[in-house]
Amino acid sequence: MSKTFDTLVRVRYAETDKMGVVYYGNYYIYFEIGRVEYMRNLGIDYRRMEIDDDSMIVVAESKCRYRRPARYDDLLRIRTRMIEVKRRTIHFGYEILHDESGELLASGETIHVVCGSNGKPKALPEKYRTILENTVATSSST
Amino acid sequence: MSKTFDTLVRVRYAETDKMGVVYYGNYYIYFEIGRVEYMRNLGIDYRRMEIDDDSMIVVAESKCRYRRPARYDDLLRIRTRMIEVKRRTIHFGYEILHDESGELLASGETIHVVCGSNGKPKALPEKYRTILENTVATSSST
Amino acid sequence: MSKTFDTLVRVRYAETDKMGVVYYGNYYIYFEIGRVEYMRNLGIDYRRMEIDDDSMIVVAESKCRYRRPARYDDLLRIRTRMIEVKRRTIHFGYEILHDESGELLASGETIHVVCGSNGKPKALPEKYRTILENTVATSSST
Amino acid sequence: MSKTFDTLVRVRYAETDKMGVVYYGNYYIYFEIGRVEYMRNLGIDYRRMEIDDDSMIVVAESKCRYRRPARYDDLLRIRTRMIEVKRRTIHFGYEILHDESGELLASGETIHVVCGSNGKPKALPEKYRTILENTVATSSST
Repeated sequence: MSKTFDTLVRVRYAETDKMGVVYYGNYYIYFEIGRVEYMRNLGIDYRRMEIDDDSMIVVAESKCRYRRPARYDDLLRIRTRMIEVKRRTIHFGYEILHDESGELLASGETIHVVCGSNGKPKALPEKYRTILENTVATSSST
Repeated sequence: MSKTFDTLVRVRYAETDKMGVVYYGNYYIYFEIGRVEYMRNLGIDYRRMEIDDDSMIVVAESKCRYRRPARYDDLLRIRTRMIEVKRRTIHFGYEILHDESGELLASGETIHVVCGSNGKPKALPEKYRTILENTVATSSST
Repeated sequence: MSKTFDTLVRVRYAETDKMGVVYYGNYYIYFEIGRVEYMRNLGIDYRRMEIDDDSMIVVAESKCRYRRPARYDDLLRIRTRMIEVKRRTIHFGYEILHDESGELLASGETIHVVCGSNGKPKALPEKYRTILENTVATSSST
Repeated sequence: MSKTFDTLVRVRYAETDKMGVVYYGNYYIYFEIGRVEYMRNLGIDYRRMEIDDDSMIVVAESKCRYRRPARYDDLLRIRTRMIEVKRRTIHFGYEILHDESGELLASGETIHVVCGSNGKPKALPEKYRTILENTVATSSST
């Protein structure tokens, strides 16, 4: 089973800055798209997770390393993987690739805490945890 | 009494695009800042208006005419005026000026419908209406 | 020949605001996507138009009428049409539809002036004008 | 001499998301404001640095740790410090505080590489390096 999930996005004019490249904060929007589509691909509708299970995945930490600039109209491949799932936390990893050339443009991670709409941490509902745990990327292989 | 209210904002790097100027959609963010500060100046805390009076001013129409580009780090003067207040609608006007030169960079308008958190239109609470009506800009002067 | 071109976008978390709906300024980002894809569909690569022909289509006017809110994760259909092409100006029209229900959520227009990288207006290169004129929507039909 | 510099920003409606709090990627915009104002306070006009000295400070790494949510209309205090200046790199640190309560909402860092407009790394011009080195925060005190 594939341990990563790829989504394509095209760089919007609005996402560039006067340097002619994607503004550094906008990579975090791509990461968001990556993790939502990662979950959708597993049958998890994040919108429903918020409404039906009162479970939001609140970002606790984020980081990004920028290697090469993404430019206007570039087609980007967001490659998302699950690094770790714990009772109350989810840890995603991302790579942003230039789709045509395959070059790695940026990589990053986000760590999330599961919270209810009251803002308090809670356990990730079992049904989601089971699905997500099965997809955790492992560096060891046999 | 002054019929307009001025707020200053400095153009952020994030707000520019690869043309080196403020992205056209971001002027609407400046308009938002203009109307919030216009109301704050009259003693209306929009945050409290949403919470205490269950009254949101939902945008129904917006428009902007762009005359000269705003650039990174420019200090902009957002000049806001009240065009009309009706039972359920509020109509704001804006001018974006380059603060140093005084040049007019953009002008626009927004029309808002007062809604409750259920999304249904409702009358603007009397206390706000009274305050806002007193500030409606009139073209006739004596 | 179809006089409109449709593009799909999914509403991002980043595009919503605390009212739970798409922030009003972000519809202008959807309009930008609509016109870029409209042109791409006609074989016009806007990125190349900027670089190869030193022709930027600078926004001179924009407006939007909001009918129903777009929400997080909604799949939106951006329907773009060409209203008018003149020597130096291009006028686009847009409708934002909820893809699943077909409901009209917003509609708007943008008027653009063709400029060189020096910021001065110039005539739209003939090759683009010919292509775009052929797609102007006409209200009269036979 | 103070080793940090504070700037105030008010949370805009556009910066919130449907969770009712500031979208996680937007903290990086606050960081940008922090470092620009940090430099301005030292007499460095970043706009002029790009134009006059062909020196851009391109982001190579960014990270943020989110502690408590920032909400619409909150007045935030961006506290910026210089962690390290090297020949070709600049390392900033940030804290985002709730101005009224003084609570720490988020903290983060960015590492920048000095580049020319050709995109190639270059040494930070001496005049800037001298100024910035003098402000590097030191954990040891006497």
